[in-house]
Amino acid sequence: MKLTFSAASPFARKVRIAAIELGLIDKIELTPATVAPGQPNDDYSRITPLKKLPVLILDNGEVILDSYVIVEYLDELAGGGKLIPASGPLRWTIKSDHSLLQGMLDSMLLCRYENMVRPEALRWKAWSDDHWNRAWSGMARFESRVDAMLARPFDIAQIGLVCVLGYADFRFADCGWRKAYPKLDVFHQKMLERPSVKISLPPMA
Amino acid sequence: MKLTFSAASPFARKVRIAAIELGLIDKIELTPATVAPGQPNDDYSRITPLKKLPVLILDNGEVILDSYVIVEYLDELAGGGKLIPASGPLRWTIKSDHSLLQGMLDSMLLCRYENMVRPEALRWKAWSDDHWNRAWSGMARFESRVDAMLARPFDIAQIGLVCVLGYADFRFADCGWRKAYPKLDVFHQKMLERPSVKISLPPMA
Repeated sequence: MKLTFSAASPFARKVRIAAIELGLIDKIELTPATVAPGQPNDDYSRITPLKKLPVLILDNGEVILDSYVIVEYLDELAGGGKLIPASGPLRWTIKSDHSLLQGMLDSMLLCRYENMVRPEALRWKAWSDDHWNRAWSGMARFESRVDAMLARPFDIAQIGLVCVLGYADFRFADCGWRKAYPKLDVFHQKMLERPSVKISLPPMA
Repeated sequence: MKLTFSAASPFARKVRIAAIELGLIDKIELTPATVAPGQPNDDYSRITPLKKLPVLILDNGEVILDSYVIVEYLDELAGGGKLIPASGPLRWTIKSDHSLLQGMLDSMLLCRYENMVRPEALRWKAWSDDHWNRAWSGMARFESRVDAMLARPFDIAQIGLVCVLGYADFRFADCGWRKAYPKLDVFHQKMLERPSVKISLPPMA
């Protein structure tokens, strides 16, 4: 299998962590790809019209997306119910937490595109403030929940939270999340003990 | 259960169609909500920091999101394996197709926000062109696939495609998708025979 990959992508990081934890990383070739909003990449658009990282390309050519479905796929390959509970109420708590974290990452990427990629004269502060507020108030939600998360076996919601916090360090280094959310800081330090989390830190964190 | 809802939201439409098809619509109270980028809605942000429609609020107060996870949840409530195959290769084809359609909708919403909501002086054509191209080339992908989709029982990928095409009519009425993609036109007409699809058409389509 091939995974289109960039070390800067928090979504690709999520899959990489999952693949390591599931014991599948050796079966996956990380294939570098570069995408940027407003810039065509016709070769990559042929693989996925969404022009987003990552996708998993199976040996038969089938393309699995998005990062969440790839993790579900790998989880099933590894026997099922490893990073996402196969049944029970916790299944829906973890899936919903992961959706929230995924949306926080989407908003953080939109902030980054607004503040760093879009031509400066065309930036709309109300837009980036709105999206940053979604990510920031999402962190507040997890600050109140993270003790319960830490008490659980490692799962996709914990991976998602690691990727949110790592991306905050990488692209919003001055946002002050550690001070505002001390329990998330404890969580992040604890997670860094896992080799999968440490090896996949974004390049400039 | 309560579903936060707007008739204009293609993601809420997806859940509504699924709930009707699964025989669960009578157990769900549709609760109107209005969200707009760049405008705060503190009450709704307390329900979900992402400030997005829809979320499903269970009777115990737990909040399920996003639209995809809600459909998975309802599918399980209805016995499982109804709109998403529970196993087999088709499971991953349908899930990946749905992710692609979900991303096409995200891009269409970003186009709408760029071209209709953002102050006119701040619009960046390369951004909206890029996102429109993702949706448009995604449609091309489904034009080549839709015969196989029509041969299957009704599933979440078909629902996603209905929502993409309905949203194109609603917000991009002049885009000409029927002419460019005649097989999608046939698909859409066929789908409109289903009461769930017809009753959920966006208000001004």
